[in-house]
Amino acid sequence: MSEVAVRFLPDDVEVWVPAGSTLLEAAVLCGVLISAPCGGMGRCGRCRVCVEEGAPDPTEDERRLLGAGDLASGHRLACKAKVDRDCRVRVHVDRAGIVVQAGGDMPPVGLAPAVRRCMVDVAPPSLSDLRPAAERVRGALPPECSVSEWDLAALRELPGALSDGGRVAVTTVGMRGVSASVGTTGDADGPLCAAACDLGTTTCVVSISDVLTGELLSVASGANGQAAWGDDVVSRIAAADGSKAARDRLREAALSTVNALLGRAADEAKVGRDDIYEMVMVGNTAMHHLFLGIPAGGLSRAPYVRAVGSALEVAAAEVGVKIHPAGRVVWLPTIGAFVGADTVAVGIACGMGAPGGLRLAVDIGTNGELLLGDGHTLLACSCAAGPALEGGHLSCGMVASAGAVQHVRLTEDGPQLEIIGDGPAGRKAKGLCGSAVIDLVAEMLRLGILDETGRMVAPPDLPEALRAALVEADDGRRFALTADGSVYLSQRDVREVQLALAAMSAGVRILLAELGAGPEDIETVYLAGAFGSFVDVDSALRCGLIPGVSREKVRSVGNAAGAGARMASLSVPVRESCHALAEHVRYVELAGRSDFQSVFAESMIFRPAV
Amino acid sequence: MSEVAVRFLPDDVEVWVPAGSTLLEAAVLCGVLISAPCGGMGRCGRCRVCVEEGAPDPTEDERRLLGAGDLASGHRLACKAKVDRDCRVRVHVDRAGIVVQAGGDMPPVGLAPAVRRCMVDVAPPSLSDLRPAAERVRGALPPECSVSEWDLAALRELPGALSDGGRVAVTTVGMRGVSASVGTTGDADGPLCAAACDLGTTTCVVSISDVLTGELLSVASGANGQAAWGDDVVSRIAAADGSKAARDRLREAALSTVNALLGRAADEAKVGRDDIYEMVMVGNTAMHHLFLGIPAGGLSRAPYVRAVGSALEVAAAEVGVKIHPAGRVVWLPTIGAFVGADTVAVGIACGMGAPGGLRLAVDIGTNGELLLGDGHTLLACSCAAGPALEGGHLSCGMVASAGAVQHVRLTEDGPQLEIIGDGPAGRKAKGLCGSAVIDLVAEMLRLGILDETGRMVAPPDLPEALRAALVEADDGRRFALTADGSVYLSQRDVREVQLALAAMSAGVRILLAELGAGPEDIETVYLAGAFGSFVDVDSALRCGLIPGVSREKVRSVGNAAGAGARMASLSVPVRESCHALAEHVRYVELAGRSDFQSVFAESMIFRPAV
Repeated sequence: MSEVAVRFLPDDVEVWVPAGSTLLEAAVLCGVLISAPCGGMGRCGRCRVCVEEGAPDPTEDERRLLGAGDLASGHRLACKAKVDRDCRVRVHVDRAGIVVQAGGDMPPVGLAPAVRRCMVDVAPPSLSDLRPAAERVRGALPPECSVSEWDLAALRELPGALSDGGRVAVTTVGMRGVSASVGTTGDADGPLCAAACDLGTTTCVVSISDVLTGELLSVASGANGQAAWGDDVVSRIAAADGSKAARDRLREAALSTVNALLGRAADEAKVGRDDIYEMVMVGNTAMHHLFLGIPAGGLSRAPYVRAVGSALEVAAAEVGVKIHPAGRVVWLPTIGAFVGADTVAVGIACGMGAPGGLRLAVDIGTNGELLLGDGHTLLACSCAAGPALEGGHLSCGMVASAGAVQHVRLTEDGPQLEIIGDGPAGRKAKGLCGSAVIDLVAEMLRLGILDETGRMVAPPDLPEALRAALVEADDGRRFALTADGSVYLSQRDVREVQLALAAMSAGVRILLAELGAGPEDIETVYLAGAFGSFVDVDSALRCGLIPGVSREKVRSVGNAAGAGARMASLSVPVRESCHALAEHVRYVELAGRSDFQSVFAESMIFRPAV
Repeated sequence: MSEVAVRFLPDDVEVWVPAGSTLLEAAVLCGVLISAPCGGMGRCGRCRVCVEEGAPDPTEDERRLLGAGDLASGHRLACKAKVDRDCRVRVHVDRAGIVVQAGGDMPPVGLAPAVRRCMVDVAPPSLSDLRPAAERVRGALPPECSVSEWDLAALRELPGALSDGGRVAVTTVGMRGVSASVGTTGDADGPLCAAACDLGTTTCVVSISDVLTGELLSVASGANGQAAWGDDVVSRIAAADGSKAARDRLREAALSTVNALLGRAADEAKVGRDDIYEMVMVGNTAMHHLFLGIPAGGLSRAPYVRAVGSALEVAAAEVGVKIHPAGRVVWLPTIGAFVGADTVAVGIACGMGAPGGLRLAVDIGTNGELLLGDGHTLLACSCAAGPALEGGHLSCGMVASAGAVQHVRLTEDGPQLEIIGDGPAGRKAKGLCGSAVIDLVAEMLRLGILDETGRMVAPPDLPEALRAALVEADDGRRFALTADGSVYLSQRDVREVQLALAAMSAGVRILLAELGAGPEDIETVYLAGAFGSFVDVDSALRCGLIPGVSREKVRSVGNAAGAGARMASLSVPVRESCHALAEHVRYVELAGRSDFQSVFAESMIFRPAV
């Protein structure tokens, strides 16, 4: 079969593929990221690209989803367009505008990292001390750097068996000696780092910390490269199922994302990849299995079991993570098929393992997970919230990047929008991210534009500017946020949000019931995840996210999963607490409960906040 | 620089190299084995090949070492001839004739291998048992197969988290689960093997055993591919010193040898490489460092220290050993810079760690090592015997392959030769291997053709047929074994042998003195190594190898190092005994002793055997 060259802009990356390949396949091959939320089914139209040269004839799907003008100017769907000649393709990426998620409000951690370095003076051998170099070095090490086993890489560094003695810089990860370099050259004085990675279904966040000072050096985030296989874990698991090759593709896509972010974070931190000796990873259980190349089929079939649950430590080289060649990758333990290491990390970052009053941690990402407990008892559940609270699967939903409406207030003058990347010259709204959706639903509830069943209505006293925003379209009512009606929330969108909120609040109710407690017993609610970072807490409460809880009890804690991973990368005791928490927590399977359907139905009703 | 094609026969392997490369460099590149005992210095002439087409002009060294006729017919020295055009080179190998060293007389070993396999029935998950697959499997394992850690490879095998339950074949190496396959397909019923490798300076021996029965399935031996860098450890260490690239070349040469022998042995055993889950390795300390890619410079410079001494276990994949991808390579511990894991293995195979009478183990390979002890005290030393006792560095010395004289008796009718590969049609003698050299020296001593100082003389009563064999040459006297005088022992050769024997017997004397014992206190002498397998014990004693010990105390134990390695591959307790022996043994540095020179000088005198 003949091959053609596909060049992707603005990255300027070229790849050769067999004629007949889709542009999405070509993009995956060379690591160019194109989001395909529907999993390449030609349904969502999100993977639109512009083929500036060599555009193939449009397919039926493309004719349906793209306008004639767009087709004429070379726009195609990456998942459908099959290349038949050399071509040049422009991908629409607005990377500069992606909001970097912070490392979260991390509670103070006593620095006790697994990665350590010691400088020791090793005497030359003599007739009275003919011990091998490795043993002379080991004998000179202080207890905090003690070594039970040497990596081959470290042994290969020892020059001439240290015949002349000298100062040796020994780097250890746990009890493993991974590097032993002589003199002040090399990495003796270099930075010593650990990374933390929160591999989310949608977004991946990598941070690099200096293990000598605990300082956070840099954070990089970007879209999970598995997006080409769908934007929810079920699509990803299905895409990986069936063959080792399929599994490898998903594994490699996530790996490329992690490695690219590691590179960006290292550049920003002005350290080398080789200065990073360990990476602590968290993510949901599907990400855990898919990243490690472990069959994930059991996670999406009843009775929903994991292949492996305990924490895993592997050689970075074995899984392809590009840090120091002798570095280690540590996955924190998972709790269940639907409650992953990210939830363990949230629990640790929020101090859920410590005794105290009743506390609730709510982590909303592409799915929602809850932890409820008082340090003595700890319950966890997963809520099938779907991506709606992140803006996913909505008519005008988008990730929190430039052009996204981030916050909305409805006034007599009409909708007032806060847009990401808005400057003095103003910026056109492109869509709604999750926090804007919650704001809008809350405002519509406040003004009676949504009734308690979630139906869009026009109350008699609605100001004219807002009444004008309520428009009728073929698929039902919409509430338009822009004058041209291009950014809006549809009745169907409201239902998606309503279902997601109901899933979360039903989870909260059931966990409380399990403990025989009520919402008034909750001392503190931690709102975590991208959602927790950006959402307006008043809006969230008004939408009924956590029914019966008053505003002053709620704390936004940002990316608590990433923060927990970072804490674990800086402290072995924290890591042990993660194991203890994962062992201790009791998983509550909502779907398995007889009362779930009625609690869920009840949660569908919007009620006024406390 | 232009490249030329070099084709090697009879292997019919072609390689492209830059013009100006030597034939030896080309041969190394494509894995063709050419022995170059002098390390490519153009001194020994042993790397002679025939360039059948495209022969370059001969160099000065080649003119000096090769005759005009040979040069005209295309003979060249591989280490000197630089290719300047495409050429075809015939290498003289007589592989079929190489004598396979046996696995040694192995004492009985209780089967307790590190490699095990268990079949377990794992119930499907249920709502009351949602444990991850790996934990359900672990829980079902019997104690002898218990797993503390799973290899990623094993986790990747578990299909769909064992949602349907089923029969699982779990293979473990130590406490590590390396494979978990479902059903009776795959390797559930397959062979389960471990390999043992004795990586000698000259010869490498690999054996494969069935760990379920303990049966020895096959043995393969061949020349160590590092021969191109010299035939003693000092040349090899020098060749590896200086750069990582140089170290990698030596490492890869040994690795290729081991992998090729593993392949041959697996073929012969009718098992796959993937059926072998572990390989136990022994060899001298230089081989240990060079094989693992650890800098070996400290081994050849005073005060002669190792980079590492303890036993090392590494992933087979990490060091490139081609067995099961999740298999392990275990090097037994070394004792000192000159006393390696091979001596530990000899000690174990001869039971030197067990209490009993005073015993001496003599392992003669390219170097000689001694172990002396009663189980309570155990001493080791290394004797700088050099390769003379293997036939190396002698005018007509050769390895024990077809055409080598293996045994010699001197009778009134002249020398009576026993030649390897001799058939009814007779076979022309090509050279002398070690056992023939010892026979000949012993016979010459018996008949007075050698006096006690090692000088060749013609005693008055010497039969005429033998007197005729004593000939004068430019470089001194020779004793010819063939009518045409092509195979002979020179006066210089006798000196080499005398030095080697003196080094060994001086070692024995000093170890005995160290224990305050005499030769009469020795209960048993174990003769190990290739030498021990083929040498005539009476001849060895007559030459004074172990002065003062009578014939009935001596036992030949063959390749005891390989046997010890095999024992360790079949028994974890044996492996632990190896560690204990290596810890317990006291290394006696001969060169560091004030009395060594006088004992050595005294040992140079040939004395009648007891």
